[in-house]
Amino acid sequence: MSCWAGPRHWSGERRAEQVIRVESLSPELRGQLQALLLQRPQHHIQTRTWPCWGSTPPKKVPHNENVPLKEQHQNPLRQKLPPEAEVATVLAGELGFLPQPLGAFVRLRDPVVLGTLTEVPLPSRFFCLLLGPAMPGRGYHEMGRAAAVLLSDPQFQWSVRRASNLHDLLAALDAFLEEVTVLPPGRWDPTARILPPKCLSSQHKRSLSRKREVEGFSTRRMAGAEDRRGPGPQVPCPELQRTGRLFGGLVQDVNRKASWYTTDFLDALHPQCFSAVLYIYLATVTNAITFGGLLGDATDGAQGVLESFLGTAVAGAAFCLLAGQPLTILSSTGPVLVFERLLFSFSRDHNLDYLPFRLWVGIWVATFCLVLVATEASVLVRYFTRFTEEGFCALISFIFIYDALGKMVNLTHAYPIQRPGFPGYGCFCQYPDPQGNESQWATTKQKNRDDILSMDLGLVNASLLPPSECTQQGGQPRGPGCHTVPDIAFFSLLLFLTSFFFATAFKHVKTSSFFPSVVRKVLSDFSSVLAILLGCGLDAFLGLATPKLTVPTEFKPTLPGRGWLVSPFGANPWWLSVAAALPALLLTILIFMDQQITAVILNRAEYKLQKGAGFHLDLFCVAVLILLTSALGLPWYVSATVISLAHMDSLRRESRVCAPGEAPSFLGIREQRLTGLVVFILTGFSIFLAPVLKFIPMPVLYGIFLYMGVAALSSIQFVKRVQLLLMPAKHQPDLMLLRHVPLNRVHLFTAIQLVCLGLLWIIKSTPAAIIFPLMLLGLVGVRKALEWFFSPQELLWLDELMPEEERSISEKGLEPEQSFGGDESQDSELMYQPKVPEINISVN
Amino acid sequence: MSCWAGPRHWSGERRAEQVIRVESLSPELRGQLQALLLQRPQHHIQTRTWPCWGSTPPKKVPHNENVPLKEQHQNPLRQKLPPEAEVATVLAGELGFLPQPLGAFVRLRDPVVLGTLTEVPLPSRFFCLLLGPAMPGRGYHEMGRAAAVLLSDPQFQWSVRRASNLHDLLAALDAFLEEVTVLPPGRWDPTARILPPKCLSSQHKRSLSRKREVEGFSTRRMAGAEDRRGPGPQVPCPELQRTGRLFGGLVQDVNRKASWYTTDFLDALHPQCFSAVLYIYLATVTNAITFGGLLGDATDGAQGVLESFLGTAVAGAAFCLLAGQPLTILSSTGPVLVFERLLFSFSRDHNLDYLPFRLWVGIWVATFCLVLVATEASVLVRYFTRFTEEGFCALISFIFIYDALGKMVNLTHAYPIQRPGFPGYGCFCQYPDPQGNESQWATTKQKNRDDILSMDLGLVNASLLPPSECTQQGGQPRGPGCHTVPDIAFFSLLLFLTSFFFATAFKHVKTSSFFPSVVRKVLSDFSSVLAILLGCGLDAFLGLATPKLTVPTEFKPTLPGRGWLVSPFGANPWWLSVAAALPALLLTILIFMDQQITAVILNRAEYKLQKGAGFHLDLFCVAVLILLTSALGLPWYVSATVISLAHMDSLRRESRVCAPGEAPSFLGIREQRLTGLVVFILTGFSIFLAPVLKFIPMPVLYGIFLYMGVAALSSIQFVKRVQLLLMPAKHQPDLMLLRHVPLNRVHLFTAIQLVCLGLLWIIKSTPAAIIFPLMLLGLVGVRKALEWFFSPQELLWLDELMPEEERSISEKGLEPEQSFGGDESQDSELMYQPKVPEINISVN
Repeated sequence: MSCWAGPRHWSGERRAEQVIRVESLSPELRGQLQALLLQRPQHHIQTRTWPCWGSTPPKKVPHNENVPLKEQHQNPLRQKLPPEAEVATVLAGELGFLPQPLGAFVRLRDPVVLGTLTEVPLPSRFFCLLLGPAMPGRGYHEMGRAAAVLLSDPQFQWSVRRASNLHDLLAALDAFLEEVTVLPPGRWDPTARILPPKCLSSQHKRSLSRKREVEGFSTRRMAGAEDRRGPGPQVPCPELQRTGRLFGGLVQDVNRKASWYTTDFLDALHPQCFSAVLYIYLATVTNAITFGGLLGDATDGAQGVLESFLGTAVAGAAFCLLAGQPLTILSSTGPVLVFERLLFSFSRDHNLDYLPFRLWVGIWVATFCLVLVATEASVLVRYFTRFTEEGFCALISFIFIYDALGKMVNLTHAYPIQRPGFPGYGCFCQYPDPQGNESQWATTKQKNRDDILSMDLGLVNASLLPPSECTQQGGQPRGPGCHTVPDIAFFSLLLFLTSFFFATAFKHVKTSSFFPSVVRKVLSDFSSVLAILLGCGLDAFLGLATPKLTVPTEFKPTLPGRGWLVSPFGANPWWLSVAAALPALLLTILIFMDQQITAVILNRAEYKLQKGAGFHLDLFCVAVLILLTSALGLPWYVSATVISLAHMDSLRRESRVCAPGEAPSFLGIREQRLTGLVVFILTGFSIFLAPVLKFIPMPVLYGIFLYMGVAALSSIQFVKRVQLLLMPAKHQPDLMLLRHVPLNRVHLFTAIQLVCLGLLWIIKSTPAAIIFPLMLLGLVGVRKALEWFFSPQELLWLDELMPEEERSISEKGLEPEQSFGGDESQDSELMYQPKVPEINISVN
Repeated sequence: MSCWAGPRHWSGERRAEQVIRVESLSPELRGQLQALLLQRPQHHIQTRTWPCWGSTPPKKVPHNENVPLKEQHQNPLRQKLPPEAEVATVLAGELGFLPQPLGAFVRLRDPVVLGTLTEVPLPSRFFCLLLGPAMPGRGYHEMGRAAAVLLSDPQFQWSVRRASNLHDLLAALDAFLEEVTVLPPGRWDPTARILPPKCLSSQHKRSLSRKREVEGFSTRRMAGAEDRRGPGPQVPCPELQRTGRLFGGLVQDVNRKASWYTTDFLDALHPQCFSAVLYIYLATVTNAITFGGLLGDATDGAQGVLESFLGTAVAGAAFCLLAGQPLTILSSTGPVLVFERLLFSFSRDHNLDYLPFRLWVGIWVATFCLVLVATEASVLVRYFTRFTEEGFCALISFIFIYDALGKMVNLTHAYPIQRPGFPGYGCFCQYPDPQGNESQWATTKQKNRDDILSMDLGLVNASLLPPSECTQQGGQPRGPGCHTVPDIAFFSLLLFLTSFFFATAFKHVKTSSFFPSVVRKVLSDFSSVLAILLGCGLDAFLGLATPKLTVPTEFKPTLPGRGWLVSPFGANPWWLSVAAALPALLLTILIFMDQQITAVILNRAEYKLQKGAGFHLDLFCVAVLILLTSALGLPWYVSATVISLAHMDSLRRESRVCAPGEAPSFLGIREQRLTGLVVFILTGFSIFLAPVLKFIPMPVLYGIFLYMGVAALSSIQFVKRVQLLLMPAKHQPDLMLLRHVPLNRVHLFTAIQLVCLGLLWIIKSTPAAIIFPLMLLGLVGVRKALEWFFSPQELLWLDELMPEEERSISEKGLEPEQSFGGDESQDSELMYQPKVPEINISVN
């Protein structure tokens, strides 16, 4: 409602008269009232504002009151209004000369522009007048507010536009009051501000509040469960329906994608794609460096940074050109890296030739994946519930954290800390060719006592030059202290902590209250890159000999003496090519889980993808690429959840007109293949960045590694439930699952997950570690067994339902909408805003 | 309202009949209804609970329904109820056989216990019955809730107990509805939970809501401004009224306090005092160590840890025995420490004998303070508004932070980092007495090649033993590398960061959601001690030669060659004893500000002190103690805000009976002199802790120093306003001052404060630094000048009013309650919960 001092003219005298005539007033009062209504109103937007409570000087400006003012046209509020908006006017206030309250509610047949009366010059249909003698308190003002709220309610609008008599109007009012929430007085402070909900529920939702919608604080949504969780309408995922024919899914995918192929390039012609390329390129290069460095570390150089860059470029570009989901960014992700490390230590322990063995594993994996594509196995993804998925994610995260810390501990062994009384202290430089037997000590001491550096230590021809300079001058460093490099251990620890803390801090800038949103977004999106740069800068500033990323100076495989093509047998016996099928089976499980779960997340309904998914085609491409990278000795690649989501996020199409303070509405994603392709071509050229990359200290990368592990952990519900174990009940957040499942049942479920993880960790630490993908699959069995201990309702809230349970729950007639109430999902969204980049299932 | 399946008996058939008889029902219906009402109710507390929605088996138990069950008597809910609580019963539900809704509202003349009907066996006065045929939705349940809320409102209770007819009842209902807050439907999700306000406003407040109460997010309350801010009634502070006689205030204080002196010891006989002693002792010792160590550092050992312990013990104990405010804990606080450092560097620069000079400064300070006591200058405290106080606090905090960081930088100069190519590398051990000229190198090499440590380097008789062992064996360490201790610089930095981060983290545990409140309180209260212990443990574990706290091994002054009594002249010229009056004047300003502001905070109305304050007596005691400590060469002491508040907090008297989840109510403080006395006696005995204290590394103390600076900074409003400068408007918190002062005016005020601080900092960095207390006083002038740029209303919200402004604002008739509204203070309390330990004005 606008602040008004008394409207001088609202749409001409005729209408003012009409309003007043309906009331039984004395002619004198009627005249006074009409004069008041015909005064020109004073809006907030006008530059010279009179105080609302003071008396307005009756200023006569020659102006046509039926024509809106310039200020009204320039009102920024207009931007907030939808195209067909109408204005309603509520005039309320005290009028001393009125003997009793006067109210009028006017509905015009056709809306008209009321000149200077309204704040924005849009047509008005409703007009409400509330005047009366002075009342204690702010009665009329509050009544006016109530009328304005009433008129802004879409359901009331709908009813009152169609009302044909007073009864209809009162019915609409009753319907509105039915839904009012009342806060009693007393303990509640009426001036306290209640924050509005972060997600506004749509009107649609209110009228369809019985719709079946159940929302946990899930980090991902399974395709089969989309209907239960999605904020949008129930969309069955056609890509996950079995066709029943061999390669039927693949053929379907190819046909579907082929029809979009031309637009996949034309749709990229938008400036937004440039910034997306820059952002994703930086993220991809950081990933390639981190994982390349770690892989080189883990495999004693069998793969290195060069292979990482080359593999990322080749595999990524091929995938962007040919796969079903062109927005996917491939990466050598955490789980596969862990497996590769296990494979390497296995082959080292058994004296196998690693790369040929790995080639055969790759060949078998490709074969198994082809079988999975042929049999349309991707539809089985629905059996991996959140329980399995979080076990997978938590285990991998723990491995990341454990490895990062372990590598730092190893570093302190390589660069020991010099304690007082540490035996290996001294170091001197001995020249190999003694010139004579005579003592030169005395003369040196006399001549040049301070120049102790090149001091000749008598017969042995020694000096105190540092080892490097000693070697340069033809000497030989001798003594136990020559190999200890001081300060490196603690400085590495500082670098490690710095990169970890700054990556975490930059990431959290996004949700802080400081800085404009653009700055926050940049700091948060480039958190890893910035943390790496900061660590490198600190290292370069002090110039200590910290261990650095080893980068090849020329374009050849990191492992010396091998060509680009891996020989199929090497020094291995022939039967190993058959035996490789066993680890390949395990790796297939891993790759299948990682790839398909990512694909499901990327194809969620809320991203509004138009061109459909390609689960089978994607898996087929991954299989072919695994064959290729195995043959070339490059890392293995699958889809990376987080970086692909960041890619999609940078390609969001949003509505243009958004008023200040109003979030633009999401229209969809620029689905195209060009940004990804350009990113990977740039990554390929980055191989020549080697001279720059060698300045990156390894502890910085370990810090980023730790950050990835911690970030992945903190995004899963399991960890939030573990936190509940430590939380007194009164501090627990208002989670939907706590509203519906008793606390001790939640704790039991968490404890079972903890025990499973503990067992997995123990087995991982034994020599049988390589079979851990099989045990991850065992989680599916454990989850199935949980159906004996937990009711379907509890599992629905704690996890999600397996296909059989969904059937059982509908057989029992316990439909979720009956027992849980449909509109509560809104509330859980309040508690757990879905933040897209936090949907971390793999940890890269 | 209790969950009920149908009450079988509520207080006997007679009363059930009475209720039903008032309604015009058919006899058949009446019978059915009576049978229903006479069923025994099923309460939540009973162990076997039937589902609320299911049908209850009509179980017939032989039991006297007029006698409450055991479960009712054991109901933990009883603890929540005040002694004279009464029960009201609301029974609501659907009854299929009723043709139309049936309602009854019963008031009994005298309340009676209704047997098994009520959840707790307390007398009932009101009974409400709401039954009717099935209605769509949960109509009756909601009506029942509404009736229960109505009956739990104290004002409605008051009215309805006195109501004599239906009209009175309806009037009470109307009065209740008048105050109801309505949330319209539509965008608001009705299932969203609105968190209750953290501070419940008292009923008193609601009925007296026109009372003049204005609340900013102040960290302290001036005595003269108490009436504007205190949540309690307006209490004029009699201690700050001028008597007009010489020493009149002091005499008044002594008389007032003398009457309480016996009870000041008797009131300490409570077990709570033991834990208070332990807590405050640990905090005092930590303070004595930190400030003693820093003071020793700053004055080149003119005062050290021993002086700090001795001074704390002597001054603290004397103050507890004799001062006006016995709960005050004395401490050598930050501002005085800074001044002492400036005084020391001044006297060093001018080749003065420090301690005699300091003695004269002390003599003059004591004299000036006596003059201030005689003239009752303490009443002038009202001119130090928040503007001055925050300038004071911010400057001191910055000095703390700057010093802590500076000390760490100095440490890296003392223990240089060894970079590659660093010239001073080698070190060997030379024995002073060459035995012969023959080369023994060749033989050593053959015989014992690995035993390089004692390897004889030919004629010069040198070995590679570490310097310490070399000296032990009579040799001499030679070479540029002998004096560099590796790893110390970075390890010190790690210790510094560790102690800072852990002190901060432990402090914040108090407001986290994890762990039971006891654990949180311990971790938070002992945060500094725990962080110091952690740092010491880390240091001891690695055993590196970090710089440690230097502690005397015997009981004598730290400065060698002086007795306990400082000679009055030493090597200084006689006129210096007169010239010392100038720095003494400056120090007097500092001490006056620090001491009196602390005293005002400790005497706030909300602490409900019964025995009154003693502003003049306290200042008198401080003056005498400054004379004493100057003569003995001990640090200077004034009241310490934070530690005294912690002392008071540990002596809170609280109401006994508090039900689970309900906070006990605060009754007052155990005002006595014994706990403080015991704390300082224990501190005195801690001088013999020297063998333990020498394990504390200095970087850990610097970390605590940094923590104190940052903690003091973060508690002041000025910093919160600086943060506003960086915050986009939509993320700004809902501060009261932002509701009442335009944002650009707030920014202007903050900018002026920033400029003042910048100027103070620049002057502090020049040789004229010693006069900085005078410039702090200049802030009062700047504040006065601000009255030209800001309206009194703006200053009221941004700062507080000076005495003249208070007059001017009442002359203009702009009373705050008119323009601001009285009951909004509640809201600001919501935003800024006053946390007692955060009321940091000095930083110790």
